Amino acid sequence: MSSKYIVIEGLEGAGKTTARNLVVETLKSLGVTDMTFTREPGGTVLAEKLRSLVLDIKSVGDEVITDNAEVLLFYAARVQLVETVIKPALARGEWVIGDRHDLSTQAYQGGGRGIDRELLATLRQAVLGDFAPDLTLYLDVDPRIGLERARARGELDRIEQESLDFFNRTRARYLELAAADPRIITIDACQPLEAVSRDIRATVTRWVQEQQ
Amino acid sequence: MSSKYIVIEGLEGAGKTTARNLVVETLKSLGVTDMTFTREPGGTVLAEKLRSLVLDIKSVGDEVITDNAEVLLFYAARVQLVETVIKPALARGEWVIGDRHDLSTQAYQGGGRGIDRELLATLRQAVLGDFAPDLTLYLDVDPRIGLERARARGELDRIEQESLDFFNRTRARYLELAAADPRIITIDACQPLEAVSRDIRATVTRWVQEQQ
Repeated sequence: MSSKYIVIEGLEGAGKTTARNLVVETLKSLGVTDMTFTREPGGTVLAEKLRSLVLDIKSVGDEVITDNAEVLLFYAARVQLVETVIKPALARGEWVIGDRHDLSTQAYQGGGRGIDRELLATLRQAVLGDFAPDLTLYLDVDPRIGLERARARGELDRIEQESLDFFNRTRARYLELAAADPRIITIDACQPLEAVSRDIRATVTRWVQEQQ
Repeated sequence: MSSKYIVIEGLEGAGKTTARNLVVETLKSLGVTDMTFTREPGGTVLAEKLRSLVLDIKSVGDEVITDNAEVLLFYAARVQLVETVIKPALARGEWVIGDRHDLSTQAYQGGGRGIDRELLATLRQAVLGDFAPDLTLYLDVDPRIGLERARARGELDRIEQESLDFFNRTRARYLELAAADPRIITIDACQPLEAVSRDIRATVTRWVQEQQ
């Protein structure tokens, strides 16, 4: 089977790390051995520097990053990761497992922050073209539950400190985009961990078998 | 007279700093008192951080910044500068004098590096809309002369170390864009300093008088 790019998406506290481990375990049980892992924003030297600029406003003093600048930085980090890490790994025959990708920008910036969706679509098309994950698992969680889990883990960064309304808008956009794209599968992450795990294993197994 | 945005453009060693001082001196003699100065990429805390990322590849280790990522970083820095510095200064009634702006990206990336011009036009329109300098002085210099001057000043940065062919393509694109836009005035910067200075003073004086 040719290499695939699988992305895990969802709000803070949706359980992306647990899901990532389950996806890897399931793929291994299905015979996939060579895997590369990415996270966004980040995953390259340049992209990690941009990640800290965007996620920690304090590092640029009292200056507020404008919405448009933020979006451009996310896309700069993303295109750097796609061109220097993801595409080369896929070309070597490795599967790539990503923690977030373009759907996060569409949901957080386009849904949560209300940045012009046409601008986001234009940027995406201009710099990424038709490149997209083969499969995205969207872990759907009520923001109240997700944020409670994230808070229990420690300090929240700038983006995680946004209001509940922001996360409700982000979730709504995630659900809207997932409904419109057959390559995005929604997992109900409000369920108990055991049920979520079972769903992820079953979804990945079924999807891999369909590719063969 | 309402505030204006004047930009000085040209290859390395074209004499942009000297020209900037002459423009300021001429404007003062014409009664302009409140001026804000910018340079690109840079001019805000975020933009200066991006400037050092882009201009000094060594700061990101051995990783090569992809063309698309570079262009997105330039636009992130530019939109941050326009929204947080240039537009507010113009709104306060100050004139803004800029060392480089969008024309540099069109010439260096679009001409020199051969990055898709449609991508550049799309990005520009998407993030800047119709915002543009009221006047651009393009200092036209033969790259062999300009680079000789720049070398005499000290170490060249990454972009300045490009080949002569690169600078010839950049110059050709500058000339092409200047010929197509009446808001760009070309100054022959191969002339002796005295003649260049006279041309700059005369051009700025005539232009300011035409605005009244």
